[in-house]
Amino acid sequence: MSAQSVSKTSPGNFFEDFRLGQEIRHSTPRTVTVGDVALYQGLFGNRFAVQSSDLFAQKIGFTRAPIDDLLVFHIVFGKTVPDISLNAVANLGYADCRFLKPIFPGSTLSAVSEVIGLKENSNKKTGIVYVRSRGFDDAGDAVLDYVRWVMVRKRDETAASPREKVPELLKTVEPTRLGGACPKINRAAYDNVLAGSANRFDNYKSGEKIDHVDGVTVEEAEHQIATRLYQNTARVHFNQFAESKGRFGRRLIYGGHVISLARALSFNGLGNAFQVAAINGGRHVAPLFAGCTVFAWSEILACAELPGREDVGALRVRTIATKDRPCSDFPLKSGDDYDPAVVLDLDYWVLLPR
Amino acid sequence: MSAQSVSKTSPGNFFEDFRLGQEIRHSTPRTVTVGDVALYQGLFGNRFAVQSSDLFAQKIGFTRAPIDDLLVFHIVFGKTVPDISLNAVANLGYADCRFLKPIFPGSTLSAVSEVIGLKENSNKKTGIVYVRSRGFDDAGDAVLDYVRWVMVRKRDETAASPREKVPELLKTVEPTRLGGACPKINRAAYDNVLAGSANRFDNYKSGEKIDHVDGVTVEEAEHQIATRLYQNTARVHFNQFAESKGRFGRRLIYGGHVISLARALSFNGLGNAFQVAAINGGRHVAPLFAGCTVFAWSEILACAELPGREDVGALRVRTIATKDRPCSDFPLKSGDDYDPAVVLDLDYWVLLPR
Amino acid sequence: MSAQSVSKTSPGNFFEDFRLGQEIRHSTPRTVTVGDVALYQGLFGNRFAVQSSDLFAQKIGFTRAPIDDLLVFHIVFGKTVPDISLNAVANLGYADCRFLKPIFPGSTLSAVSEVIGLKENSNKKTGIVYVRSRGFDDAGDAVLDYVRWVMVRKRDETAASPREKVPELLKTVEPTRLGGACPKINRAAYDNVLAGSANRFDNYKSGEKIDHVDGVTVEEAEHQIATRLYQNTARVHFNQFAESKGRFGRRLIYGGHVISLARALSFNGLGNAFQVAAINGGRHVAPLFAGCTVFAWSEILACAELPGREDVGALRVRTIATKDRPCSDFPLKSGDDYDPAVVLDLDYWVLLPR
Repeated sequence: MSAQSVSKTSPGNFFEDFRLGQEIRHSTPRTVTVGDVALYQGLFGNRFAVQSSDLFAQKIGFTRAPIDDLLVFHIVFGKTVPDISLNAVANLGYADCRFLKPIFPGSTLSAVSEVIGLKENSNKKTGIVYVRSRGFDDAGDAVLDYVRWVMVRKRDETAASPREKVPELLKTVEPTRLGGACPKINRAAYDNVLAGSANRFDNYKSGEKIDHVDGVTVEEAEHQIATRLYQNTARVHFNQFAESKGRFGRRLIYGGHVISLARALSFNGLGNAFQVAAINGGRHVAPLFAGCTVFAWSEILACAELPGREDVGALRVRTIATKDRPCSDFPLKSGDDYDPAVVLDLDYWVLLPR
Repeated sequence: MSAQSVSKTSPGNFFEDFRLGQEIRHSTPRTVTVGDVALYQGLFGNRFAVQSSDLFAQKIGFTRAPIDDLLVFHIVFGKTVPDISLNAVANLGYADCRFLKPIFPGSTLSAVSEVIGLKENSNKKTGIVYVRSRGFDDAGDAVLDYVRWVMVRKRDETAASPREKVPELLKTVEPTRLGGACPKINRAAYDNVLAGSANRFDNYKSGEKIDHVDGVTVEEAEHQIATRLYQNTARVHFNQFAESKGRFGRRLIYGGHVISLARALSFNGLGNAFQVAAINGGRHVAPLFAGCTVFAWSEILACAELPGREDVGALRVRTIATKDRPCSDFPLKSGDDYDPAVVLDLDYWVLLPR
Repeated sequence: MSAQSVSKTSPGNFFEDFRLGQEIRHSTPRTVTVGDVALYQGLFGNRFAVQSSDLFAQKIGFTRAPIDDLLVFHIVFGKTVPDISLNAVANLGYADCRFLKPIFPGSTLSAVSEVIGLKENSNKKTGIVYVRSRGFDDAGDAVLDYVRWVMVRKRDETAASPREKVPELLKTVEPTRLGGACPKINRAAYDNVLAGSANRFDNYKSGEKIDHVDGVTVEEAEHQIATRLYQNTARVHFNQFAESKGRFGRRLIYGGHVISLARALSFNGLGNAFQVAAINGGRHVAPLFAGCTVFAWSEILACAELPGREDVGALRVRTIATKDRPCSDFPLKSGDDYDPAVVLDLDYWVLLPR
């Protein structure tokens, strides 16, 4: 017998390895620190005052500046990758993603996923896996809860399909379910000038479109550093040797990187949208590669009051990110398809002071 | 009426938007942390012991390692960009820049500028805006105070010029006004070996020239990460799509990046110059681009004792940074012009233990 | 007399400057923080739970998540560069490297080296310098102790050689001398699922080979940021202007960068090897350049119990890193020489819970 071991390394799960109802505790708990905050700042350049300033955050009701919601998302998401999507062909979508509790430096995040849907594709080579993933802090409280579905390869095309079920997914998170991560805000203490925007919740209208104006070019080092910061192990982001032989000839940029870039760009127009409360759905329409310049624009889909809360309101925002294409004319569709420049179509809720 | 909104996004101020005496409170207060310190370290490689070691700093009289003076400068400067220089054609100069109070991790910085001068250019397309900008900590104390002037585009060439005034600017900060950010130093406890230099204040002489020997090549990811760390939104640093059509075809590197690179290089020859006390003036002689290697040399312009202080002395230093040009022969002028390799000509005061 | 000064800058030591028994206190003490941890995380993507999570670390017996052993190594190593290897032609090897005490954020590291061997080369142009370097924390305790030897240029080929001695070097660190940096581990509290591996000490066998599967491409910005984070001043890593005229035409990547990349890759197969206890020896077989993709595989050389300890065991591991060459067939030799893809051959001890 050979002394060689392949069993020590994790090949990740293939489609036939999943079972409906299966609960997967993910590895690599992670204490988030001001170090992560600084690096995230350097990578994306966010300017939302709540996450930037302890003083500002304290004045309006936080104990200190909370960790950026999307940084929490990326860290929790990263934990799920080795178990859920190491053998994924495509990340198909997100739904019902809610931020439930503010996270501060020093908290330790961990993640658990439940398999809530399975559907083999007719080619028998792949199947779709639906998971509900939850992030927890060191108090054991759920801090993030979301569904995603991915197309995962089968190890063996002849393997029997697991029991199938396609879950019903919410198209949108109801406003009544928003705001868990947002303490009561002292809106009188919220300083518009320091925040960098005069526009609060009541200044926005459904149907309004905002070009976020600026563009930012992505470098290989940047997206690699970001994605490793989240301990996301998806191979396509890091291995040029393999990707040079692949479909695109290049490393793909983690889709979450585009979300964070678009969120940072959105400050110019949505400067008081200090918290992402939920993600209704998102689609990575096309891959992004280093060297491309990302632009973004947003449409306000809805303006919702939150039950029992007079401090903050929620805007449902659809943000479109493009590559190498300014957004002053709000590019979206080209015939029935997306405009070829579009890379991200994200539908989410943000909170603003009223 | 279109639901499209351009009013939500900030176009920045144009020349005719400024008024003499106008006070501008800048947005995006920022808590500085050990995370910022680490990233700044990774980007510039500083070796000054005071900023590197809590223990060293405490032994000589600080409560802990202070934040690098230039990091404070960049963060305060970054806040002024959206209001002052988003529509700048050129950053023309700095004067009377003083560091007034040491900053430690956990402090929250904010910034306010006053318009102290305005002068329309004869072409009516641009004008020069002079501002005095001040950085404050969470105690409300001024920590940094400087003047800069920039050439800003007019939105409308036919707009009337605001009331004009060209302020008188100090050519140099008098030594009597230095040292606010430096507590009393226990010079006996200052360990030259740990600091990495045997040369204290009294070892330097006016007229002395020092080649800082080493060169450092700049990458796009590095200057972008640095500039975003400071929340500096100047577009020319980030948007290759737009810059590819511009004058240089490339992203420009933030001038402050060159200052920090030169400061880090200057350790080799000025290792005990542990604090930048003031900047008398500075000129970004030529743009710097990624891929270039930066070198630097310095001339000691003056050696000044500080009134009432026997612990530290001040050296007035002129540091010249070049691109792709070693500095062993102290390149500066080529005829009446700068040597084409020169990118920075900086005149500043540093403090050294006596 | 010219006012120009070269004496203020350090040219580093040349071979004839060293003396047997000489003790060199290195400059630049350094307080390690959670900022360094985050940046190291972003650069290498480690997933060892002990260093990632305060909570995990506390449950098994640490006071909090310790600083990654290799980060400690790189910081201590970096301090030695200006004195030991600024004029080195080649970094020849390491021996008897032991991690003696866990380091936590807030500790200040300093370093001292003793010259333990000197041997001039027959060409009289270079000589080999052997040093034992020690890292200390702010309590004055030794935290790291290792021997390295480097080939250093002579300033003057006619200079007399210093007194010579070639020290006897340990081929391996005896297991009895391991474990100083590892507190008693509560192995019942060690959660394999959170740690990401079901394989503990007793699951490994001598002779076992493990392909670590993944590859990671290195960017110039990444290795420069890492190497500056350690305040390592070796010129070949930073100066493309000079290196473009050199032997390779490119910046060389710090050898320690490869070690850290290989260590991070080794998680896939050695996920419970939470601590590097010692480095028996290492050879940077070939230089690495930006753009290359690093792969790694390991062989278990020995499995050793530690005297008096039932909590952890030690695996002696030989890890081979390659460039642009996957390791599924465990590349090592090509005839008498190394396979041309091999860049690192590292022999070290890791600790795993039993």
